[in-house]
Amino acid sequence: MLGHIARRLGHQMSNGLKGMNLPHVLTKETHRHLQSPFDTICPVSMMSLWPFSGKPQDFSQPNSSWSPEMVRLYEHYNALCDAENENGEKKRGPWRKLPSYDRTIKYATGGVHLSKLVQAKARLFTRCIEEEGAAFEYVAFLNKVEKTCVCVFQAGHLLEGAPGHLHGGAIATMIDTVTGTLAGYLSGPVMTAYLNTNYRSPVPLGSVLLIHCALDRIEGKKIFVNCKVTSSDESKLHTEAAALFVSINIGPLFGTQS
Amino acid sequence: MLGHIARRLGHQMSNGLKGMNLPHVLTKETHRHLQSPFDTICPVSMMSLWPFSGKPQDFSQPNSSWSPEMVRLYEHYNALCDAENENGEKKRGPWRKLPSYDRTIKYATGGVHLSKLVQAKARLFTRCIEEEGAAFEYVAFLNKVEKTCVCVFQAGHLLEGAPGHLHGGAIATMIDTVTGTLAGYLSGPVMTAYLNTNYRSPVPLGSVLLIHCALDRIEGKKIFVNCKVTSSDESKLHTEAAALFVSINIGPLFGTQS
Repeated sequence: MLGHIARRLGHQMSNGLKGMNLPHVLTKETHRHLQSPFDTICPVSMMSLWPFSGKPQDFSQPNSSWSPEMVRLYEHYNALCDAENENGEKKRGPWRKLPSYDRTIKYATGGVHLSKLVQAKARLFTRCIEEEGAAFEYVAFLNKVEKTCVCVFQAGHLLEGAPGHLHGGAIATMIDTVTGTLAGYLSGPVMTAYLNTNYRSPVPLGSVLLIHCALDRIEGKKIFVNCKVTSSDESKLHTEAAALFVSINIGPLFGTQS
Repeated sequence: MLGHIARRLGHQMSNGLKGMNLPHVLTKETHRHLQSPFDTICPVSMMSLWPFSGKPQDFSQPNSSWSPEMVRLYEHYNALCDAENENGEKKRGPWRKLPSYDRTIKYATGGVHLSKLVQAKARLFTRCIEEEGAAFEYVAFLNKVEKTCVCVFQAGHLLEGAPGHLHGGAIATMIDTVTGTLAGYLSGPVMTAYLNTNYRSPVPLGSVLLIHCALDRIEGKKIFVNCKVTSSDESKLHTEAAALFVSINIGPLFGTQS
C-alpha cells in the first residue's frame, strides 16, 4: 500500500514546484519510500494521506480522445514495463508507467494561501480541463536504470497559440512537468530553478509528440535534466530544453523554517 | 475601423507563435497597418476578417473575480492611457491597453491541420477556460515610447503546481504571451525562438503579479526581450526571463513557400 501511495505522492510531487519534504506529516520511514518510489510494498497503511473520497482517477489511462498513434505509443511503452526473463516468466523491467492525478495531495500546508472553497477547487494545471482530448493528454514512463523519462503527449485544441498550432507556453508546461517528474524521482522533492527552452519548429494542434528527458548530472542539491520534444516517429525535432531543479524541503516554500 | 481591427489582429498575432505575415488575405496597405497598430483609423472596412458572429469579447476587462489589488492596478495603468496635456485637454499618451480575445483570428490557413469541428472549438491557451477567475486573468498595457509592456496577472486556482502554488509552466505561458505581445507590436509577426526562465521564488495561487517586459535590442529579424515577474507592489521578484523572437512570414509556418 505504501509503495502505491509513495509512487502516487512521488509523481504528484514532481509536478509544478516538484514536491517538498514532508516533515509534519510523514514519518522518516515513509519519507525514505518517497525518495525511493520503486521500493517494494510496505505494510503501513497510508490511505489517510489521500484527502478525497474514493480512489483517485489516473488521468494517464487511454480514453476515447486518444488517436491511434497515441494509443500505439502508449502500448509500446506499456509493454516495456512488463519484461520477460530468459525462462519466459514475467519480470519487472526498468520501465514504469507513472500515474497522473488532477490534484496535488494536501499532505502539506500548501493551501494556506487559499480559502477553503478555493482549496477544494484547486487543480493541477495540466489536468484542470475535464473534457477528454481538449487540452493535455499525456502519459509518462520512467526508466530507473537509464535515468530517463519519456512522455507521450497529444496536444488538444484548447492549447492554441497561432491558429492551429500549439502555444509555446503549453510546450514549456509539459517540459517542466516531465523534466520535473524525472528530477523528483531521482532526488526527492525538487523545485524548478531554471527552464531554458528552444523552439525549433511549430507543432500543429492535435499532434502526438514524444517528450524525452534524461538526467545530465547531479551536483549536490542540483539536478540538471535535458529534454527533447519530437514528432511521434522521432524524425522531427520540435523543441529542446535544459532544466535545473534544486532539492528542497518544505520550509522555504511556505515561509516556515526548514 | 481598420485601426481597431489592426490592433485586434496585432494583439492576437502576438500570442502563441506571435502571428504571421498575411499575404493571402491582407492587402499591402492593411499589412502596413498591422505592423504599425497605433496608426490612425483607415476608412477601409475589414470586418469580414473577423469570422465569428457579433463583436468579440475582450477578456481583459474587469470581472467579478478580480481582486481589489487587480482592479487597483488595472485602473492605475488604464488611467495612464488617457493623459492630459498642459491645457487640461484629453490627449492620448504613450500607453495603450491591449484587448485580448479567446481565439486567434482565422486570417490564415492555421487550422489546416484540424477538422472543421476542432477548428471551431480551438481556443487561445490563455483564454480557454471560461470560468472567471479560475485560470489566467490578465490585462496588458503597452508603452510605445519606452518599448515596454506591463501585464497585471491574477493566478487562478486551476493553475496549480505544488499545493497552493502556481505551476512553473503557467508562469512560462504568461511570460511567453506578454514578451511575444511586445515583440509582435514592435516588429510585426514573430515566433518564439527561445525562452529562458529563471524561477526565483514560488507564487501562491490567487496572487496578483506584475509582468514587466522591455525590449533589449533588435538585430535584423531578431527581437530580444527581457522580462521580470514581481509581486503586485514590485517588492518581490518571482521570475526573470529572457526571450528571443524572430520575425517570420506565414510560409515556413504552414509549409508553403515564403
